[in-house]
Amino acid sequence: MDVLVPFAAREPKTRLAGTLDADERAAFARAMLLDVCDAVEAAGGEPTVLATEPLAIEQPVVVDKRPLTPAIDAHLSPPAAVVMADVALVTPAALRRLFATTGDVVIAPGLGGGTNALVVRADGFTVDYHGTSVRDHRRAAEGAGIDARSVDSFRLAVDIDEPTDLAEVLLHGDGRSADWLKNAGFRLAETDGRTTVERRG
Amino acid sequence: MDVLVPFAAREPKTRLAGTLDADERAAFARAMLLDVCDAVEAAGGEPTVLATEPLAIEQPVVVDKRPLTPAIDAHLSPPAAVVMADVALVTPAALRRLFATTGDVVIAPGLGGGTNALVVRADGFTVDYHGTSVRDHRRAAEGAGIDARSVDSFRLAVDIDEPTDLAEVLLHGDGRSADWLKNAGFRLAETDGRTTVERRG
Repeated sequence: MDVLVPFAAREPKTRLAGTLDADERAAFARAMLLDVCDAVEAAGGEPTVLATEPLAIEQPVVVDKRPLTPAIDAHLSPPAAVVMADVALVTPAALRRLFATTGDVVIAPGLGGGTNALVVRADGFTVDYHGTSVRDHRRAAEGAGIDARSVDSFRLAVDIDEPTDLAEVLLHGDGRSADWLKNAGFRLAETDGRTTVERRG
Repeated sequence: MDVLVPFAAREPKTRLAGTLDADERAAFARAMLLDVCDAVEAAGGEPTVLATEPLAIEQPVVVDKRPLTPAIDAHLSPPAAVVMADVALVTPAALRRLFATTGDVVIAPGLGGGTNALVVRADGFTVDYHGTSVRDHRRAAEGAGIDARSVDSFRLAVDIDEPTDLAEVLLHGDGRSADWLKNAGFRLAETDGRTTVERRG
């Protein structure tokens, strides 16, 4: 399976700006990208990083400076998949389940209405990553008479965008992203509600 | 599979206090409980509601006023499962996958370190729902030489505790909980980040 991994190479992860400085955000975003590419390869996929800027990385890179939606539409050639570069909990098993799910379109929902991973086997399906994309993708498939399925995966649902998401990486990750956070001094912090993170040192 | 569904009958869902008043929280919590019980039954499980107060509901109810951990430990008789009453996105398919996962202990992680569903097939495993329970349950299993597995499910991972979680119900639910929110005037609201909810009328 060809897998596009879109990556915002310039100023990634701005919603973590209160928690990580710009250099840290870039380093952490790269750690997540590498974790995702590793998992794609381990699941038998062939990742191509779709980056907004040139990028030094082992995997093939295609540079497209346009916003996410037109860039993906230009480079997605079915059958193919799109896996976001910030699903840091991803495992080969989760991706194998995604790739093995039948359907002309297979959606892995993200928290808050995102589409964290997508398999497109039908021609004529246009992506739309703006706004509540999981709803828009379902509607687009329905409107085009395309059979759309979902894959039910926590590891694909959690994209790392906000400070509270960092706890998920510490709890469930075992790759570069989790190591990066630990080395940067992040530790789990229990609260009355969901466990979050604190930074030491 | 016998399935305990713990339910805080008195003042449920306090973290939604800024969004729903006390009567609304009680009604919404009950809608979620019924959705969970329906899904358990549809997946071939036999739910027993473990409630802190007497409760009028079709399913069997056991009342235990103690905190969650001692109450579950007292009433969990392996092989059996525990499914939280607020996993409003749950489907029979997600529960079938949970029940079918082999292992003496099977954990469905919740957002923020929770344990939203649990299958216990081994004697001698003690639950601990306080704090970061997913980590504590893994450690307890390891310490007792018990084989613990995880099930990777978005629908089991999202428990509905906080206002932003309500968007997940509107996006992915199709039972009483989603209907309750729609009837109460909640609609999806797009933001720059994750989609959330707004209330009209």
